[in-house]
Amino acid sequence: MTGNRVVVYKGPGEVSVESTDYPKLELPGDVAKGFGLKTAAPHAAILRLVATNICGSDQHMVRGRTTAPIGQTLGHEITGEVVEVGDDVLFLKEGDICSAPFNIACGRCRMCNEGKTGVCLNVNPARAGAAYGYVDMGGWIGGQAEYVMIPFADFNLLKFPDRDQALEKIMDLTMLSDIFPTGYHGAYTAGVTTGSTVYVAGAGPVGLAAAYASQLLGASVVIVGDMNAERLRQAESFGCETVDLSSGADLADLIEPIVGEREVDAAVDAVGFEARGHGAGAKEAPATVLNDIMSVGRAGAGLGIPGLYVTGDPGAVDENAKIGQIGVRLGLGWAKSHHFTTGQCPVKRYNRHLMNLILADKAHIADAVNATKISLDDAPRGYEEFDKGAAKKYVIDPNGMIPA
Amino acid sequence: MTGNRVVVYKGPGEVSVESTDYPKLELPGDVAKGFGLKTAAPHAAILRLVATNICGSDQHMVRGRTTAPIGQTLGHEITGEVVEVGDDVLFLKEGDICSAPFNIACGRCRMCNEGKTGVCLNVNPARAGAAYGYVDMGGWIGGQAEYVMIPFADFNLLKFPDRDQALEKIMDLTMLSDIFPTGYHGAYTAGVTTGSTVYVAGAGPVGLAAAYASQLLGASVVIVGDMNAERLRQAESFGCETVDLSSGADLADLIEPIVGEREVDAAVDAVGFEARGHGAGAKEAPATVLNDIMSVGRAGAGLGIPGLYVTGDPGAVDENAKIGQIGVRLGLGWAKSHHFTTGQCPVKRYNRHLMNLILADKAHIADAVNATKISLDDAPRGYEEFDKGAAKKYVIDPNGMIPA
Amino acid sequence: MTGNRVVVYKGPGEVSVESTDYPKLELPGDVAKGFGLKTAAPHAAILRLVATNICGSDQHMVRGRTTAPIGQTLGHEITGEVVEVGDDVLFLKEGDICSAPFNIACGRCRMCNEGKTGVCLNVNPARAGAAYGYVDMGGWIGGQAEYVMIPFADFNLLKFPDRDQALEKIMDLTMLSDIFPTGYHGAYTAGVTTGSTVYVAGAGPVGLAAAYASQLLGASVVIVGDMNAERLRQAESFGCETVDLSSGADLADLIEPIVGEREVDAAVDAVGFEARGHGAGAKEAPATVLNDIMSVGRAGAGLGIPGLYVTGDPGAVDENAKIGQIGVRLGLGWAKSHHFTTGQCPVKRYNRHLMNLILADKAHIADAVNATKISLDDAPRGYEEFDKGAAKKYVIDPNGMIPA
Amino acid sequence: MTGNRVVVYKGPGEVSVESTDYPKLELPGDVAKGFGLKTAAPHAAILRLVATNICGSDQHMVRGRTTAPIGQTLGHEITGEVVEVGDDVLFLKEGDICSAPFNIACGRCRMCNEGKTGVCLNVNPARAGAAYGYVDMGGWIGGQAEYVMIPFADFNLLKFPDRDQALEKIMDLTMLSDIFPTGYHGAYTAGVTTGSTVYVAGAGPVGLAAAYASQLLGASVVIVGDMNAERLRQAESFGCETVDLSSGADLADLIEPIVGEREVDAAVDAVGFEARGHGAGAKEAPATVLNDIMSVGRAGAGLGIPGLYVTGDPGAVDENAKIGQIGVRLGLGWAKSHHFTTGQCPVKRYNRHLMNLILADKAHIADAVNATKISLDDAPRGYEEFDKGAAKKYVIDPNGMIPA
Repeated sequence: MTGNRVVVYKGPGEVSVESTDYPKLELPGDVAKGFGLKTAAPHAAILRLVATNICGSDQHMVRGRTTAPIGQTLGHEITGEVVEVGDDVLFLKEGDICSAPFNIACGRCRMCNEGKTGVCLNVNPARAGAAYGYVDMGGWIGGQAEYVMIPFADFNLLKFPDRDQALEKIMDLTMLSDIFPTGYHGAYTAGVTTGSTVYVAGAGPVGLAAAYASQLLGASVVIVGDMNAERLRQAESFGCETVDLSSGADLADLIEPIVGEREVDAAVDAVGFEARGHGAGAKEAPATVLNDIMSVGRAGAGLGIPGLYVTGDPGAVDENAKIGQIGVRLGLGWAKSHHFTTGQCPVKRYNRHLMNLILADKAHIADAVNATKISLDDAPRGYEEFDKGAAKKYVIDPNGMIPA
Repeated sequence: MTGNRVVVYKGPGEVSVESTDYPKLELPGDVAKGFGLKTAAPHAAILRLVATNICGSDQHMVRGRTTAPIGQTLGHEITGEVVEVGDDVLFLKEGDICSAPFNIACGRCRMCNEGKTGVCLNVNPARAGAAYGYVDMGGWIGGQAEYVMIPFADFNLLKFPDRDQALEKIMDLTMLSDIFPTGYHGAYTAGVTTGSTVYVAGAGPVGLAAAYASQLLGASVVIVGDMNAERLRQAESFGCETVDLSSGADLADLIEPIVGEREVDAAVDAVGFEARGHGAGAKEAPATVLNDIMSVGRAGAGLGIPGLYVTGDPGAVDENAKIGQIGVRLGLGWAKSHHFTTGQCPVKRYNRHLMNLILADKAHIADAVNATKISLDDAPRGYEEFDKGAAKKYVIDPNGMIPA
Repeated sequence: MTGNRVVVYKGPGEVSVESTDYPKLELPGDVAKGFGLKTAAPHAAILRLVATNICGSDQHMVRGRTTAPIGQTLGHEITGEVVEVGDDVLFLKEGDICSAPFNIACGRCRMCNEGKTGVCLNVNPARAGAAYGYVDMGGWIGGQAEYVMIPFADFNLLKFPDRDQALEKIMDLTMLSDIFPTGYHGAYTAGVTTGSTVYVAGAGPVGLAAAYASQLLGASVVIVGDMNAERLRQAESFGCETVDLSSGADLADLIEPIVGEREVDAAVDAVGFEARGHGAGAKEAPATVLNDIMSVGRAGAGLGIPGLYVTGDPGAVDENAKIGQIGVRLGLGWAKSHHFTTGQCPVKRYNRHLMNLILADKAHIADAVNATKISLDDAPRGYEEFDKGAAKKYVIDPNGMIPA
Repeated sequence: MTGNRVVVYKGPGEVSVESTDYPKLELPGDVAKGFGLKTAAPHAAILRLVATNICGSDQHMVRGRTTAPIGQTLGHEITGEVVEVGDDVLFLKEGDICSAPFNIACGRCRMCNEGKTGVCLNVNPARAGAAYGYVDMGGWIGGQAEYVMIPFADFNLLKFPDRDQALEKIMDLTMLSDIFPTGYHGAYTAGVTTGSTVYVAGAGPVGLAAAYASQLLGASVVIVGDMNAERLRQAESFGCETVDLSSGADLADLIEPIVGEREVDAAVDAVGFEARGHGAGAKEAPATVLNDIMSVGRAGAGLGIPGLYVTGDPGAVDENAKIGQIGVRLGLGWAKSHHFTTGQCPVKRYNRHLMNLILADKAHIADAVNATKISLDDAPRGYEEFDKGAAKKYVIDPNGMIPA
């Protein structure tokens, strides 16, 4: 265990797999310095990656839409086997297979105490909240790698009860690190419950997960909207209705024949700030989806917004958008008394529940998002195909541990 | 009982008190026609007004910022004595003194069943939700009058248990029709609870009510921001901290010396779309307050938005704002996982609780908002002074029933 | 429409179908007198029954375990077609097919305002809450009949959107009047959510509905316990695990091989005060199920208690139980921080959501509870078979309207 | 730092202060063995006690009502100064003044993740949940001592932001370790909110704290019941109404003249299993208070039950009570749809909020419970006086650090 390999951002549109040091049980320098902490991390563990997925939010960096520097390590969807633990890791041991929430959290601060692990106060000196392998998120090394260090391991890691069962269901379980809880969070905070009609904007993996979660929460109808026909087919594969926005038709006109009315009970924005306007050739228009979900959410509806909105966007379409200022028609929602939930999903709030469902063979999220295994060396290809709109969720198998 | 007098909008900046017909137990024509209902309203009651207040949202109409036609009757803050009831008003009788929520609701639709009386489906053919004396709100006659008709009276009216006690505390109880619940809703949906630090944007009556409600909810510190020195003094009169935004200083810089940090646990927008930028001479900038509360709300904070945002604004500063499209920096809130609650306060959710507190002599909202009695004939003066920024809440006494 | 026929209690173990007057739009005498109301009920409607079910709680009366007088009309699970409406029924018309919640509620009192329609304050002078055809529940005429009067019809009745669709799915929709929401309420208030392990005590119709609702709420495992083998088979028919308590084995011992541990996340008491001890020949022991669910609920669990407990029980096993005083081991639950929800299900809180699910073809409650159609004349046989433990839910078809 | 002194149970009615070893950063042997953990506890800290209170629940042990062995160390209400930290205590340092919740929790298990720190799964092999100095609670050394070891210190300890301010308000802040949150939990889970009418059974420190918390939560009327006149005077000292149960009068008869009706919105049981019947000479009757709060809670009420109920009681009045089986009239509550919350207060859910209120000078809990400082050597006298019914909360000052 003297080396490691990790996916690295090499400039707009380019990633590569590079050799690096085997991780240590230590905090990133900026975190230690920023909070005045020792570097040693007796609370940390090292995982050998079993599965680690490419995420749509990685693409924001790779497309050059962030300030991520060349050399930024990537990967925050992490499932692995414990191979080393610090002195204060009490409830995990070597050989345990675990899921790591993408949000890094200390488990000891006020936010973590309230279950708000997406905005932990002790893991990123620059702001609340941190993640592995992400710009402005604390400097933690990415997990699209052979090995990764997980701090506060007893708190962060969700141990699967049985190793063999875990490996057998690993293509489902790997979705617990991010998109399954994130999609669920979008649906849940939108108020999806027994009998709801739901609109999910975006048929990428998070949108598909939000649609699937809506079904688990008891929705009577789930409609997914996108402009990518292949992704819409994927949504239909597990029973969703779909609306193709590439025609430029009015969204309510598309919803009405499905639901029997022009509005839905709950809506989810699984797109975020890189939204485009309606119609096939429409340009980027960052508030499009927000305005859409207010348009079609009924009076009293909840709106879940797991799609990412940023405070600055160097590649934005105009000067306002560069500082994250976008043309929201807030009155649309105000007139209907909408409530909005934004931000990272606090993965720990949901991952155990969803794990239980997977292990009981009652949730098949891998099928829903079309999970597709690739090797670590194939990660660059995965990034490229995913960016082109493949209706797949790429699962990297860095150590050849995923069963065929 | 053959006549009535009511406050009427006469054009930008002008209102007058005009004679009109005594109300009937009938639905407005548009409502009856829109829903295919009989005009007769056996569920309705007539109130003789005991107190009826001028509201900041009336000013949007009077300033010409809406499509209200000349002749629009005004007044949605209604407290009165039952003088007539329809055949299906079972639980009220002549002489009862009652508060009418400004939101008109049927008590029979899905939204009312869920407690969302601000978006009742059966009282306004044009959209969800209705109110007395307001443009686009169903055509119900205003209550700044001697008499007013209240539909679905058993559902809408909150009866005060004792007539003498009610008249004695009428200056407090009159705030139950709108601003006390509305302010409470803002604070409550922002998550204000025991020990919270709170920022309330706006020191008009709703802002003051939100600040007072924050205290009732157990806040440890309540800070009110405005550019009107007199209104800030009013906020200080009941123990709030204040920040004067007329200097143009950064809001967080002003909050820090009070709270000990640059953020608060919860924030309330009690201003809405007529917000101006910071600094004494700042022009209207409709997203200013939204952006402010995201700036100073801490990670995980709730934001209560009782301040009105509209879908169209003929008097707006630019073309975008005219269609209600405003430059919101949503990423500010997203990065902190903020949640937002917008819309009319569903008054019935809170008015009984707040009544109980007033009657137990534990809430003194009239003092907090500086309730000031005027006659019906003085309503035009009240509108004018209020629009100029008087730190007063004007309570009209149309029938001389308010004790000195 | 000059007559009516209704099921009547004739003494312990005996019911018959008797002729009676066609209902009027009037309040029961005791209700009118008790609240000082006019008898005329312009808010009421008459339904022609489409379906009306026999309920386990009817059996308490028929077994002589209550003070129900001979002549008590029966039936509170009501689905019917509107044939007449009062002057203040605005949103229903002749021909509408509707479900009536078993709890009668006014829609105008404090409790109804809070959604607590099971304890409405205006429909029963003797206590909070009322029901059709039930002792001590206000004197409202039962609905195991050809026709029944529904007060506050706009509030109480849930209209099905399409008549033909409603008749097609009537065997499912008829369960909305009581047991489907009641079972759901038990599961929901027990905290059943995505991934939960659940124990439901009792495999009668409410228990089966609670088990089915647990699945809808996302449970990973649902275990149903009973001593009736046929009813346990019924539970297995839709995917539940079962434990047969007739062996007298320790409940935790039976649960462990299923769940992998000796406790569950949530538990539901769908039995109530006529519980028997464990083992085939065990005598009545009214706190048995309460003590069971505390035994097997994990720390932090919720316990839903839709099973009926009474304040007096003339047929009870001992003097304590006759006054409803039963030997509860409350410390079992206290040590685990259990929370308990008791009482009638407020049907309106859930029935619309569940209707939406049925109409979307995503809930098949009739199959789960083995709904079995009988004629009105066969009602006495239905009571008898049900009391003997038939694993059926009897649906009376008084007007021959249920499709074959 | 080579020794320590701690209060020890010496047999029924007797405690003494004994010398013992200075604490180590180690788990209790039973905990380490039970969970297969190393003894070393790098997550632990040593506190020098600043204040440590005598609790009513200590009295259960001292009265001989538990299986506590002679030699049991006592004390779970702990506030102290950090004097030593383990290698994995990152966010505390020597000199910090902190409050320790009486419930010991790991911060890493499923229950802690859900905020249910009263039933942590990793601190007591015998059951969920642990506490300092308490029988059957994991074997952790008591904190009525000069020094005490706190495990999982970053998670368990609430640091006061300023040392001087903390010492100045220490008589209030010392109540954060147990009774202030416990009373608040009772009121909060009973649903006390703005305008509520509340009945609190028991005027001991927890009852007084529940009454005080009810006021903070916005109650319009708070009624405290007890048979101890001095304690009732204490309740009156901060604005509560009181009912003296020593007369044997019916509770509803006593409440009616205060509230204007015979029921209240919310009720709290701050007595528990050592309840006596009504009337001056009444004997122990363990379900008395439970039955009382169901009697006077209105329909739909919540019942908070912080008062302790046990699974076994060697000193109980009869054979049933010895196994914790008590005669509860559950039907009283069922008929009103009551919901019940039992168990230890999870202190961390509330202590930060309440601290903020104390530090903002808006909560004066020390006055409400009549906090009275005594020396460590005077602890035996404190136990004795408290057991005799003194209306005082005894605060031990083991190191002479509490300002005069």
